[in-house]
Amino acid sequence: MKLRRSGRLVDMTHYLLQNPQGLVPLSLFADRYGSAKSSISEDLGIIKQTFEEQGIGTLITVPGAAGGVKYIPSVSNKEAASYIEELCEIIAKPERLLPGGYLYMTDILGNPKVLNKVGKMFATAFNHKKVDIVMTMATKGIPLAHAVASYLNVPVVIVRRDSRVTEGSTVSINYVSGSSKRIQTMVLAKRSLETGSNVLIIDDFMKAGGTVSGMVNLLSEFQANVAGIGILVESEHIEERLIEDYVSLVKLEKVNEKDRQIEVAQGNYLEHVQSNTPLK
Amino acid sequence: MKLRRSGRLVDMTHYLLQNPQGLVPLSLFADRYGSAKSSISEDLGIIKQTFEEQGIGTLITVPGAAGGVKYIPSVSNKEAASYIEELCEIIAKPERLLPGGYLYMTDILGNPKVLNKVGKMFATAFNHKKVDIVMTMATKGIPLAHAVASYLNVPVVIVRRDSRVTEGSTVSINYVSGSSKRIQTMVLAKRSLETGSNVLIIDDFMKAGGTVSGMVNLLSEFQANVAGIGILVESEHIEERLIEDYVSLVKLEKVNEKDRQIEVAQGNYLEHVQSNTPLK
Repeated sequence: MKLRRSGRLVDMTHYLLQNPQGLVPLSLFADRYGSAKSSISEDLGIIKQTFEEQGIGTLITVPGAAGGVKYIPSVSNKEAASYIEELCEIIAKPERLLPGGYLYMTDILGNPKVLNKVGKMFATAFNHKKVDIVMTMATKGIPLAHAVASYLNVPVVIVRRDSRVTEGSTVSINYVSGSSKRIQTMVLAKRSLETGSNVLIIDDFMKAGGTVSGMVNLLSEFQANVAGIGILVESEHIEERLIEDYVSLVKLEKVNEKDRQIEVAQGNYLEHVQSNTPLK
Repeated sequence: MKLRRSGRLVDMTHYLLQNPQGLVPLSLFADRYGSAKSSISEDLGIIKQTFEEQGIGTLITVPGAAGGVKYIPSVSNKEAASYIEELCEIIAKPERLLPGGYLYMTDILGNPKVLNKVGKMFATAFNHKKVDIVMTMATKGIPLAHAVASYLNVPVVIVRRDSRVTEGSTVSINYVSGSSKRIQTMVLAKRSLETGSNVLIIDDFMKAGGTVSGMVNLLSEFQANVAGIGILVESEHIEERLIEDYVSLVKLEKVNEKDRQIEVAQGNYLEHVQSNTPLK
């Protein structure tokens, strides 16, 4: 179907947004619209400029016969800062307090707008790393992991506390929960992760880091590598933390059940993205 | 920031795709770009035409002072038919067979491209219903439920087998698993679902329908309504099925563990969408 520039811009924008991180040969667009490659190049110039000006991300052009264009989603530091502030306010609401000083976060983790934004932010933070797959622990981290994975265009693998018949053979490890010091088990389906994979670990909450460090140990059983660790909310912890190198959006500073007060602060996300090497 | 038509088309396409089902006043775009409403109307005409021609969905214009434009994602029947065929092939691969005649589907449910497509298809199937929230059972249905919810722009609520301290007070019911006839429990956080909500139930697999019918019973405890039921894979079942009114993409006809054969067919998705009243 032959499309004019205006139609091409709409369809190419949709196509690129649906295929983040994928290399799209210019010939795919040229064939799709019956247009010359030179016209497609001009279209891509307009899209790139608009994506950058509007904070949608950027387009990277790879020259040569095997080349093409790649959409890299990203969130500007300014937008990230304002969203982290918004998240802090949402999380600090006293009605989130549950008996035992726990926080109710189910609504946040079920909200597609929050997930979408947070997913894009983590994708931005790990844009410069090679990520083959995103890993999380069942069940609360799953939506977040999928939101990140959709922007990185990679699959998700889920670690469980028990093995299921529908997962086939599994590898299981024991680990010590950092805060409660209890021995727990985590399992991963054997065929769900390839040797040598670069794995981004995503979780909704981290206290002492026992679960995350368990996932790191599990990865070594699969001879896989940790590409990064992203945490939505980390809790302030006096004792030694088991995990040092991670990116967090929100830090829980103090939870006072009696006075029904929750104090939160920014996590280390902004420091982390500011120290990243810029995208080529 | 003042944008020319070409830039506006790119940015408006991104904005609409990010905000499905939401009513966007024309003044939002007019202010955003410093353009006249008449220009924005023309832009929207181009976007609507391209969305429809390229099978992205459609735009609905609501006239009047409180009006605006709404992006309704949808998959054409032709595209849906070809994708269901593709899914059938993926699912019928003999290497999916696990001991006991179970099927390994973890890779399918972890693949963002599959989830995205299937999510959009279910959103299409239930476009004409009022859906306030998507519900699923932990853990395998979660990614699918989120994919559907992101196209319907509604939150997700997750039913669990056990209650967690981080969920606050819960409502729990007992139900009889349809195929194994065992009594099981499912729980839902009390504050996760409002009275009178219209709930779309999404799950990855249905055999006799015990789990789904449990979720239907759970909804009545919350005085909530079933807006629809969407199932990725239903298994052929000789005995009486507990659930009659559902939409499925793939039907498992026969699993022969000895000969390592899996026979699949299309579910009732296409019949269902063809009988829907067209979008206004």
